[in-house]
Parts: sequence; C-alpha cells; structure tokens
Amino acid sequence: MNVLLICHPRKKHRYYGESVPFGSWEKASRNATSLGYLNSAQAIADYAAIILHVKQTYSAKNSPVIVVGGSYGGMLASWFRLKYPHVAIGALASSAPILYFDGVAPGDGYYSVVTKDFKEDSKSCYETIRRSWVEIERVASKPDGLSLLGKKFKTCRPLRRTFDLKDYLDSMYAEAAQYNEPPEYPVSIVCRAIDGAPDGDVLGQILAGVVAYKGDSSCYDVYDSSPPTASDSAWKWQTCSELVFRIGHDSDTMFPPEPFNINSFTKNCESRFGILPQPHWVTTFYGGHDLKLALRRFASNIIFSNGMRDPYSSGGVLKDISDSIIALSTVNGSHSLDILTSRPSDPDWLIKQRKTELEIIGRWLSKYYTDLVQLK
Amino acid sequence: MNVLLICHPRKKHRYYGESVPFGSWEKASRNATSLGYLNSAQAIADYAAIILHVKQTYSAKNSPVIVVGGSYGGMLASWFRLKYPHVAIGALASSAPILYFDGVAPGDGYYSVVTKDFKEDSKSCYETIRRSWVEIERVASKPDGLSLLGKKFKTCRPLRRTFDLKDYLDSMYAEAAQYNEPPEYPVSIVCRAIDGAPDGDVLGQILAGVVAYKGDSSCYDVYDSSPPTASDSAWKWQTCSELVFRIGHDSDTMFPPEPFNINSFTKNCESRFGILPQPHWVTTFYGGHDLKLALRRFASNIIFSNGMRDPYSSGGVLKDISDSIIALSTVNGSHSLDILTSRPSDPDWLIKQRKTELEIIGRWLSKYYTDLVQLK
Repeated sequence: MNVLLICHPRKKHRYYGESVPFGSWEKASRNATSLGYLNSAQAIADYAAIILHVKQTYSAKNSPVIVVGGSYGGMLASWFRLKYPHVAIGALASSAPILYFDGVAPGDGYYSVVTKDFKEDSKSCYETIRRSWVEIERVASKPDGLSLLGKKFKTCRPLRRTFDLKDYLDSMYAEAAQYNEPPEYPVSIVCRAIDGAPDGDVLGQILAGVVAYKGDSSCYDVYDSSPPTASDSAWKWQTCSELVFRIGHDSDTMFPPEPFNINSFTKNCESRFGILPQPHWVTTFYGGHDLKLALRRFASNIIFSNGMRDPYSSGGVLKDISDSIIALSTVNGSHSLDILTSRPSDPDWLIKQRKTELEIIGRWLSKYYTDLVQLK
Repeated sequence: MNVLLICHPRKKHRYYGESVPFGSWEKASRNATSLGYLNSAQAIADYAAIILHVKQTYSAKNSPVIVVGGSYGGMLASWFRLKYPHVAIGALASSAPILYFDGVAPGDGYYSVVTKDFKEDSKSCYETIRRSWVEIERVASKPDGLSLLGKKFKTCRPLRRTFDLKDYLDSMYAEAAQYNEPPEYPVSIVCRAIDGAPDGDVLGQILAGVVAYKGDSSCYDVYDSSPPTASDSAWKWQTCSELVFRIGHDSDTMFPPEPFNINSFTKNCESRFGILPQPHWVTTFYGGHDLKLALRRFASNIIFSNGMRDPYSSGGVLKDISDSIIALSTVNGSHSLDILTSRPSDPDWLIKQRKTELEIIGRWLSKYYTDLVQLK
C-alpha cells in the first residue's frame, strides 16, 4: 500500500515561510491587492496542484492521499477533503475549530474551557486567579500604583496601564491550557505554584505562577519588544479578512468579562489593512451551519480529533456525523497533541487515540482499493 | 414544498451582462489583473453568496435549492453542486461537457458528432459536404479563383483566402448540429437544400444549403462586420485561461483534418491577453479524471442530461455514476433542449425527458425533507 501523507504546517502555506508571492514578504504585504491572494481557498488550491504534481512525478496516480493537519492546518485538512474529494480520499483534522465562525459555535467557548481546565486542576488556584483582577485594579488605584504593580510583577519596562498586565496574564493562562501536554501539564505547573505561595498575598501567588511558567527571570517582558514576524502579520491579515474568530471573555469565566466586539474588531482591521472583515464568508464557502445535515448528506472520510482540555475544542466537531465522519475526543488531550511526534512519556490514552486514528484511516484505504478495482 | 430554482444563464455571470467589476467592461477588460476575477470559481462563489442572501432575505433557510443550467451553465451547475453541497441539494446539468478538459474526453468528439448528425440525416448530403472542401480549393486555384468563389457564394466582401469561407461553412454546420431542434431540425433544412439542388454542381449545392439555413439574402457576411461583444471577449478570456476546450477536426469527419493545436492556441492567447492557458486547472479544481471513482465515492444528486445529436455530448457524462448521479441521454436531443421553455410542438421523447428529470428531483426533495427532520 502506498499512501501519500501531506501535512499542513503553516510554514508550507503561501505567504508563510520562504515561498511568498511577489518575491518577498515586504512586497507581498504592501497592500490589500497583493495580500488578496492570502487566503485559505488559495492555499488549498496550491495543495491540490502540488499533490497532483507529486503524483504525476512519482507515477503514483492511484496512490491514495490522506491530508493531515492541526489547528488552522486541521481546518485546512477538513476543508481540503470537502473541496477536493477527487484529490484526497480522507482527512485527519486535529483540533480544527471549524465551527468558530459566523456564530455557529458560541464565542465564549474558548475562555470557558480555559477556566474549566484551571478549575478542574485546582479549585483554589482558579479562585485566586479569579480574584486577582480586582486586586490588580485595587493596587493600581493607589498613589503610584502602576509603578508598585510593575515592581511586584518585575516588568522589564514600566507598566503603562493595568490592561497590559492583565492581557499578559490572560495569554499565559490561555497558552498553558491550550498546550496542557503530558508529562508536564503546564496548567498544573502554574496552579502548583499559585497554590504553593503564601496565602493571603493574591498578587504574590499570581507572580509565583508566572515564575513557574515562564522560568525564573530578572524581569518579565509584558511589552513584547520583538517586532511582529511576517507570519504574525500574515495571520493577522487572515483573521481580519476571512477567518473571523469570534472569541471573547464571557462573564462566567475566571477572566474579567469582555465579550467579543465586532465593531472594535472591524475598526482595527480597517485601520490596519484598509479592508472590512467578511465574517460570513467561511460558512458560505465551506459550510458550518447545520453541519450534520450538510455533511452526512454529502461528505465522508474525515476524522475530527479534539482534546477536551484544548480551548479550541469548543469550536470543534465533537459528535460523530456518520460512519466515516468521526469525532474522536480525549478527555485529557490538548491542542493537536495527537499529531505531534510520539514520545516515551505519552500516556496510554494518547497512544490509544493515535492507534484508533490509524485504524480508521486503514479502513478508508481498504475501501479505496476495493473501489479502485470495481469503479475505475 | 418550497424550492428555490437558480438558473445560470451567462448573462447573470460576473463580467457578462450588466454587473461588471471595476465599474464597466472597458475598465474590467483592460488587463490580466482586472480580468483575473473572471473565472468559474469566482462565478460560483457569487452564486453561493447570492443564494444564501436570498434565503436569509425571504426567511427560506430550510428551502432546498436545485441549481439548473445548460452548456457552460450546466458545467457551473454540476460544479456548484460539487463545491457547495451545503448550499444546493442537487443540480440539473444540461449539455455540460465537463469532460472536455485535460484530455479526459478525446478532442475530436465534437466534429465527429456533427458529422454523424449530417450522415444520419442524409448520406448524400454528408458526401457532398465532404467533397466540397477540395472543390473550394480547386476553384480557388484557378486564375482569379478567389473572386470566382466569392461571387459563387455571394460574399458581401471579397474573399481574402479560402480558409475564411471554409470556416464560415464549418461554423454553420456545427451550429445546425448543435441546435438541431424540433420541429425545424436545422440539419434537415441544410441537407434537404443540398440534396435538392442540381447534382454535379457541388458548390451550388453547398450554396443552396447556406441559403436555406441563413435565409435568402443579397449577400452573405463571411467576414462578420460587427465588432466582438463584451460577452464574446469575456468568453475568449475564459477559454484562454481556465476553460481550455481541446476541440479539433479529426480526419474521420466530413471536415478537412485540422487537429487542435495547443501551441498555436497558446500563442494566440498569449498575444491577445498576455497570459498562458492553464489546461490542467479545471481537472485539478473540479476533478474529471476517473470520474466514477471520484464522484461515486463522494458526490450525489446530479442529473447530467445530454442530447446525443448535440456535438457537446461527446464531452458529457453519458453513463449513470450512482443512484443519484444520473446520465439522461436522448437519441434525438440537441444542445440544452430540455431546459428551454416547452412548446406545443415538443415531441413525446422531450416531454418524457423533462418529466423524468422532475421525478428524479422530486425524489431528492423527499429525501431532503426526511433528512431535515432526522438530522437537524
């Protein structure tokens, strides 16, 4: 059996990494006209052309292709299967939040899962984090409060506003939850430190969490001093044009409430790129609404794998749609963990998840080879 | 039951008719950059956005949509169903030569069918046409031969080369075969005249065919004096970029042999638009090779209807692919006849064909409404 496996790391996506239209990122990123070719539809068209070229070059015309990807790559993998079923016979879409558009999945899912992850790890840790935001504001409101706060958190540069510290902490918690991988489990690392620091000093406890997660450092870079990379900018363009993730902070989380605001989001994109986001485009082009009705009646051979500790699982497909459109969820899994290289420390459930995925793909391949004989 | 029926006349396709990007055809057609948005993928994306907008506007979210089109519109209808199965639950693709690309169907099919149509109508008519090309060359080779030939065929302007007359006749035969509709049956009109004119004067017989088909006129406009319309130019762009129909004259036809030549075709496109045709693109994007294998494993709810007297049927789907991807062929049908308005003179087989189409679509609708209850 020959199988061509194609991965979708973002580095192999047009405009990311080395292969950029118009010769260089500097030229490509000049304006909306030259950035107009940076979108998911063009990216999967590239993959289609490349796969068919590879098949031709290596005389592998009848070799089945399975597309595999995680996160945005997982979205691309499932979309590729939907749009190019004649090119790829199946897709493994790991941690693909394809429902995070146009209001299909609620926008408060992401931070609800982050909150759940912390709460389940340690109720007291969760409580401390939840209380910390008010405490930050209380200290900041004192005379010279921002400076006190900066010293407390050892910020490399003076704090300009409390939002910047809160945003820094927010991102840290989210990242810990999203990549809450064995054997370290970053959420546990943060919570052990928060719970282990002297009770009563909430900010001291939070700082202990920062130190445990980021490492012991002479100062912490709340204002990331490195300029945005080309990939950062490319991703910003994509989320400002087609991939409008409606991720906000709901009041039920351990974070200060701050729902996604389409107006400020739109204003920001308009001033940065001179374009208006198209929040309905993803569902128009790829579907999303009434997924079961649409996919069961048409599609096949997709695995949607999700780790339920991954905040992005809230925008994922978590229920089987048919015999061959399968949702594989693991209670303790994190973001795209199943498609990372296996390690000796991998827990049993992860080993089992990967085995199940290969078994399912094996069934697709058997069916394909049977069909190949009967239908060609 | 509510059904939204969307037709695909080319006039409602971007760049054709009134709705043109960049404000006007003059501006839109300036160069390859502004013509770059003129392609089938962008056109069906327009339809998707429009259909979803209509559904929203008229509170018809659950109303099933069937896309219907003929010729290029038929290609678009089938492609729409393949790419937007979440938007249209089925397609009636009438006379859609979707296999006419990238060598999937042989390039000599079109003129083979034209030949068959004439031969079946009248063997002697076919023989006369077949002999006429040499006769045209023979007369032209005499002193002042082109002038003689021009007078014989009453050309409105002097003939510059024999090719122009031959091309004029070629187009007439092709058009008569393609639109060989009841009750007139243009092929019969041409052949009755050819067969009815005095034997022995081959060119006189051919002229009689021209007069019968084009009408009695003081002269015949071999050099079409009207400037190309915007639609002509738009279509030329599409066939020069993505829709590379490999239609040529094979030696087995009643025409002088002249196989499709990709080199001269490419040169012509390059000089006209400054671009190179992409002959593999259609099969990369929509599929086409191993159609049964690809569509049976993935697609559903498409009727490919063809009239076997239509030369384009040679690039159509003529065999059932599955229970719901159905080939409906009629022996005497012509180009897209089934989707034209019905007339009192319609023969029984045409009435039956339309009835069958509606029955099949009716089954799709029943299934959709059952699924709607069970899967939503």
